[in-house]
Amino acid sequence: MSTEGFAPILIDGKWRPATAVGSFVGENPVTREPSPTQYPISDWADINAALTAAVSAFEVMQELPRKQIAAFLRSYAEALESKTDHIATAAAEETGYAFSPRLREIEMPRTVGQLKKAAAAAEDVSWRLPTIDAELKIYSVLEAIGPTVVFGPNNFPLAFNGISGGDFAAALAAGNPVIAKAHPSHPATCRLLAECAQKAASQANMPEGTVQMLYKFRPEDGLRLVQDPRLGAVAFTGSRSAGMKLKAAADAVGKPIYLEMSSINPIVILPGALEERSGEIANEIASSVLLGTGQFCTKPGLILALKGELTESLIKNVREKFADAPCGTLLDRRTQDHLVGSINVLVRAGATVVYGNEAPKVHRGNAWANTLLRATGEQFLRSPQELMTEAFGNSTLVLVADDLQQLYRLLSHCEGNLTGCVYSARDGRDDVAYDRVAKLLRPRVGRLLNDKVPTGVAVSPGMNHGGPFPATGHPHFTSVGLPAAMRRFTRLACYDNVRPNRLPSILRELVS
Amino acid sequence: MSTEGFAPILIDGKWRPATAVGSFVGENPVTREPSPTQYPISDWADINAALTAAVSAFEVMQELPRKQIAAFLRSYAEALESKTDHIATAAAEETGYAFSPRLREIEMPRTVGQLKKAAAAAEDVSWRLPTIDAELKIYSVLEAIGPTVVFGPNNFPLAFNGISGGDFAAALAAGNPVIAKAHPSHPATCRLLAECAQKAASQANMPEGTVQMLYKFRPEDGLRLVQDPRLGAVAFTGSRSAGMKLKAAADAVGKPIYLEMSSINPIVILPGALEERSGEIANEIASSVLLGTGQFCTKPGLILALKGELTESLIKNVREKFADAPCGTLLDRRTQDHLVGSINVLVRAGATVVYGNEAPKVHRGNAWANTLLRATGEQFLRSPQELMTEAFGNSTLVLVADDLQQLYRLLSHCEGNLTGCVYSARDGRDDVAYDRVAKLLRPRVGRLLNDKVPTGVAVSPGMNHGGPFPATGHPHFTSVGLPAAMRRFTRLACYDNVRPNRLPSILRELVS
Repeated sequence: MSTEGFAPILIDGKWRPATAVGSFVGENPVTREPSPTQYPISDWADINAALTAAVSAFEVMQELPRKQIAAFLRSYAEALESKTDHIATAAAEETGYAFSPRLREIEMPRTVGQLKKAAAAAEDVSWRLPTIDAELKIYSVLEAIGPTVVFGPNNFPLAFNGISGGDFAAALAAGNPVIAKAHPSHPATCRLLAECAQKAASQANMPEGTVQMLYKFRPEDGLRLVQDPRLGAVAFTGSRSAGMKLKAAADAVGKPIYLEMSSINPIVILPGALEERSGEIANEIASSVLLGTGQFCTKPGLILALKGELTESLIKNVREKFADAPCGTLLDRRTQDHLVGSINVLVRAGATVVYGNEAPKVHRGNAWANTLLRATGEQFLRSPQELMTEAFGNSTLVLVADDLQQLYRLLSHCEGNLTGCVYSARDGRDDVAYDRVAKLLRPRVGRLLNDKVPTGVAVSPGMNHGGPFPATGHPHFTSVGLPAAMRRFTRLACYDNVRPNRLPSILRELVS
Repeated sequence: MSTEGFAPILIDGKWRPATAVGSFVGENPVTREPSPTQYPISDWADINAALTAAVSAFEVMQELPRKQIAAFLRSYAEALESKTDHIATAAAEETGYAFSPRLREIEMPRTVGQLKKAAAAAEDVSWRLPTIDAELKIYSVLEAIGPTVVFGPNNFPLAFNGISGGDFAAALAAGNPVIAKAHPSHPATCRLLAECAQKAASQANMPEGTVQMLYKFRPEDGLRLVQDPRLGAVAFTGSRSAGMKLKAAADAVGKPIYLEMSSINPIVILPGALEERSGEIANEIASSVLLGTGQFCTKPGLILALKGELTESLIKNVREKFADAPCGTLLDRRTQDHLVGSINVLVRAGATVVYGNEAPKVHRGNAWANTLLRATGEQFLRSPQELMTEAFGNSTLVLVADDLQQLYRLLSHCEGNLTGCVYSARDGRDDVAYDRVAKLLRPRVGRLLNDKVPTGVAVSPGMNHGGPFPATGHPHFTSVGLPAAMRRFTRLACYDNVRPNRLPSILRELVS
């Protein structure tokens, strides 16, 4: 089909017309006005071209000095910094997120910081765990895994974007070319980012196919892509349904795929904590649930507390905050549909609406009223799967357990989550219960928190933004936190009796 | 059914009768005489009981001092040492391997050494990569993943046995209880090992379900087992067909599964090396192929060389050695059937029999003549999949390429392998070709060797006994080499703002 007027795609170092099988437009989620630009839905030919270029790029990248990759990442970070206002404006239009502080003061600095940290890690070798057995002449090291496809999510247009976010930075810094799949709900933002990435790559003299970007392709081509033998690995952040399809395709051919799919992030509030600081906790929880209109992977979607007056007053407090808070914008129509659908699943499974669950009165874009639900422990035990449905957006479910024994039973049904949090009294009166709760939560969550909401995933070397299935595909890996996140994009390479001058430089330096 | 007279299974610290759905007997592979003992095929009830006991054991193990697990491993190692002759005798009867040196002087010391190294690693904490972000109070560490099932293979009755081998040692030292699936071709050996394991566990005061063993269960129960939510991880060494079924089951529910499935371990012999030392190389290859009757995961199954007189003389040399060498015993009837079937696949795809491929004249047990095959590069390019069929046993295929260009093309078709080896001239005349070959092999193999056969997998910290699919399930992990192999049986656990006194001891020691 004719692609005249469609936005170009970034393949092999050049912006060029797509071989399109269709097109789509962006949409302002606040006004539901379409963008003027048509973006192409790529045919397999585009994906194939990107793979070919990535293979060539990878061949060159394996020989590059570490500091060259670092220089690229730094120069990209600086380019983004200098274009912050421009990019944050575009992202605000496409996502409904506030230009300031969310995009300009929070997400862009985080994105820039990640790229700079990745640059530093690219120059380091220790995270590759080089291991020398001098006596047996057996050496090993984690080496770049090969061309990596990054599927970015809708909810962090900069910090998790396939062309600029955490997976991008980690894969690149580990030495791999990246083929980014832009998220179709913020294509203009992706384009601006990719322009900076391409210029920085060119300035740093990186091979042409180091960074590439497609806007969209058919689902069947996505499955074909993740099975392609030319590909080293796949990173995906998004919905469980899409993630599970990609996982099945990749698993069938043994392709490493790192997924971040869904999480309801349980928070357990023990009775002593409520006695001590119920109002404070209600504040923290309400803010955490509504932050970014609840569109965080770590949004607390399940609050567990014990039956009683204090919990009733906590619910009342949160309800008031939900009522007082403005109703935020949801990222796109699908997010709204999905939120409404998920709340319906929860309600059908027995949850009661405490507040919300209706179309907001004043909002004409994608939005749904801040929604607070409650259910009993008994209801949960009857329908645990349904009541653990992730309602991505400004909604949460309070689960009121009859007593501690029932609370423990509820937790024993919890699936894998990114985070789990326990609020307990400062004076120690909850400590016995804490021990039981923490023991139940620990194997079910990647990050265990005390007295703190889980939203806000610090880019710390100690971070685990990961967790057991179905939150992710493998509990060994994290997608945030450098250098740990980079290890995902490596394979273990052993050299046995290989002549010293033929060893890769990292090992050669250590052996000689 | 009545299990009277069946060998008991080891569940929850006790030897007890199985809930059997059938039984089987061992068989001496040299004489094909059946063992007097009936071994049970367990019903799901046995597996279920083992899982329940493993969960209880895991709860206790998480609180144990590190040195207690180390003490268990050491005491187990010593028990095996003291029973070496007894166990090696049983293993020789069941496998046809030589009592000495193979079992008594090689495999048992390796097994004992692995357990001792695992004990040392269990006491260490550095391999768990504890990471402290003091400023943000975010800490992470690799923690034990939970009850682990180990499916042992037929070819290393001690060193890879589910109840005593590398996966067992690694999973246990990482802090996990192990449910071992004995290999039905050496049940008596497994029983002796498990007796030592159980006694050592009891002496070291380990919880009852620390080590458990079942002999066999129905395939459908195996699939159910690897999907069980109580299970932390699965380790499997065996055939590709069984491995792929278990992998599909585990992947569907996001259960970490570490597989070692198949490998043809290509060896490339560059022309300069042949000019320099053809006889030496023929010796090394023939010995490596026939070692243990070729029943090594790392047996070289594909030898690549260039057309010409030197290669003809290499083939002639290897042929002579195959003719002179005695025809070894194969582990069981299935191995023999599989070997014959695989050679047939190779022959149907165009390979020519240079030597062997017939029933041996003198051997009355499981055996097939040492078999040397050859094929041309052109034949390979027509049927690469078929000509990469693993013929597990005393057989190898020499692939004669027209020239270096064709050799590179052949290598570009290679699937993932455990090892890849290049013989090149010592004087540098092969170096240009070496670079191309190494570049092609590197991403396709876990361990790259120079001038050395791949059989003999040293238990070195630098070892990678792993590699890209379909050799294993994930190129990031190794099943041999401590501590690296232990990381497979961990999950990344992050603690965010968790009060210092509630941190696990490893982190508490580092934080305070």
